[in-house]
Amino acid sequence: MADVLIPFPLLKQSLQEALEKVGFSATRASQCAELFAKTDLDGVRSHGIERFERLLKYIREGVVFPEKGPLLLSKAGFFERWDGQLGPGNLNAQCAMNRAMELAAESGIGCVALANTNHWMRGGSYGWQAVDQGKIGICFTNTMPNMPAWGAKESKLGNNPLVIGIPRKIGPVVLDMAMSQFAYGKLSRLAQAGEKAAFPAGFDSAGELTDDPQTVLENQSAVPMGLWKGAGLSLMIDLLAALLSGGKSTNDIGKEKLESGLSQVFISLDPSVLGLEDWFEDKAEAILADYLGAEAFAGKSIFYPGQQTLQTRIKNLENGVPVASETWKKLLKELNEEI
Amino acid sequence: MADVLIPFPLLKQSLQEALEKVGFSATRASQCAELFAKTDLDGVRSHGIERFERLLKYIREGVVFPEKGPLLLSKAGFFERWDGQLGPGNLNAQCAMNRAMELAAESGIGCVALANTNHWMRGGSYGWQAVDQGKIGICFTNTMPNMPAWGAKESKLGNNPLVIGIPRKIGPVVLDMAMSQFAYGKLSRLAQAGEKAAFPAGFDSAGELTDDPQTVLENQSAVPMGLWKGAGLSLMIDLLAALLSGGKSTNDIGKEKLESGLSQVFISLDPSVLGLEDWFEDKAEAILADYLGAEAFAGKSIFYPGQQTLQTRIKNLENGVPVASETWKKLLKELNEEI
Repeated sequence: MADVLIPFPLLKQSLQEALEKVGFSATRASQCAELFAKTDLDGVRSHGIERFERLLKYIREGVVFPEKGPLLLSKAGFFERWDGQLGPGNLNAQCAMNRAMELAAESGIGCVALANTNHWMRGGSYGWQAVDQGKIGICFTNTMPNMPAWGAKESKLGNNPLVIGIPRKIGPVVLDMAMSQFAYGKLSRLAQAGEKAAFPAGFDSAGELTDDPQTVLENQSAVPMGLWKGAGLSLMIDLLAALLSGGKSTNDIGKEKLESGLSQVFISLDPSVLGLEDWFEDKAEAILADYLGAEAFAGKSIFYPGQQTLQTRIKNLENGVPVASETWKKLLKELNEEI
Repeated sequence: MADVLIPFPLLKQSLQEALEKVGFSATRASQCAELFAKTDLDGVRSHGIERFERLLKYIREGVVFPEKGPLLLSKAGFFERWDGQLGPGNLNAQCAMNRAMELAAESGIGCVALANTNHWMRGGSYGWQAVDQGKIGICFTNTMPNMPAWGAKESKLGNNPLVIGIPRKIGPVVLDMAMSQFAYGKLSRLAQAGEKAAFPAGFDSAGELTDDPQTVLENQSAVPMGLWKGAGLSLMIDLLAALLSGGKSTNDIGKEKLESGLSQVFISLDPSVLGLEDWFEDKAEAILADYLGAEAFAGKSIFYPGQQTLQTRIKNLENGVPVASETWKKLLKELNEEI
């Protein structure tokens, strides 16, 4: 499918207009559109405009409420619980990370648990949000069930993404990873292209690992990263998110018609409060220089998480943001339709 | 190698005596011996008495100082930095988790970063320590370099274990995992037995995945859990541990003659401060019942992290703790030697 290159301001403006048509105020539409547009700007195409139509559908079906945002449920020191009131997942998550950073600015570390929220789209957004303010951001979310426990035929775990952002002036380090080795979206693209996955991607009906994306899609049996290890970490994330927020578990979410009412946790640490700003900069530089200086296998390159994001961002700001032409046409159609 | 079954009190007492002989006070020897003995009691045989001789060696070589413990370096709200003064890693870690729990009891969440410490032996000890007090414990450590980054031939990353403990009256959930798919100790045992690993365990000299433990041992090229994902998470753990503690990174540790001067982070959350005790119990029960209720593949069983620990503990308390007879003989020899 061919791409078109859309200037970032036009992309953001178009998304904003579409959001206003489904009930967002101008301010919230602008914030939400910016998160979507920045996702494509940063080259994370799976979670930007390609997910936008699904958001509009969820709004029209009354699963996501454009004008709802987090309400404080309870507070104990520098831990807070908030109710996301089924508002837009990306705006809710942005608000929660902001609040975690405010708490960290007071006490060194802060934690916000968010119940009843929706899919946060690109998890990395909230890692970048923290590092853009010079803060550490750690966050995770549960999801609907889509991954089996180790030994299990049925998918009772979510792929529960984990995000860790570490600030650094000359290039922050931002890890954004789901607990499945491959995303189902990636496996769909491989299946359409008639290709195998480069590594085992899931289980066949006998419980053996397979690199055939079609089999994994049919069985909805994505392999956890690290096999039993990622399965265990996914369970811990679901437990932490649901228990701390007082919200839904992956199991609960699986009972909904559409994925909704997720539980999330946001933790921030503030190097400036800790008096560690200079140390952070110099030490991170030394660690990354050593890491990147490792001899690579022939034909391979070594990157740290998030390293290529800034280059992609600069390129896309200059040349325009690549968007699948079909997806762009759909967005323009949304804008031209009668309300 | 045959095992002998040692009654838990005798195991602990013997370890304590050996520690007193190398310069521990009676109180600290008792605490340190208990951590070692409990590790075998819980069936984590790789990190209990089998590591004890190495600890004695490190003490004799002046790498671990029996009577040194953590000193407060700085405090910002509910984040504290401590200097482990190269004391025994397990006592230092226990002390740090205790302090994180004290902070959490005040403010909901607390964080202790520990520099200049030593190998904490069984990481799960500090997860169990937290859940035994009804608290959430999250901790991680860096290590010497022993795992390659994705694409790298050289091992610049540590296997940097991560521990998460969630309290629960009828069976806490405690995850204790290193970032490598298999431990080198496990691979050594497989190589000695002439067996292959059940899954790819590392890289051959051409950079291809291999299940041959001997190749992985020779190349010191253990595969990260989840391939590029675990490699990324390992880097984040090293960055967080070194940056927050102001201590050594994996790279620095690799320059030491023996693995020493590690950096660690301990985070605790307190459900009782959060007013979430009842919710925790009921919700965790529902999540785990669903998780364990998944249909398993033929011949497979589903467990949650830590589930089998309590059963092993009860069995070993009744029947005696299994210890390799050669290892037990070595310990007795230590006790009978002149100082």
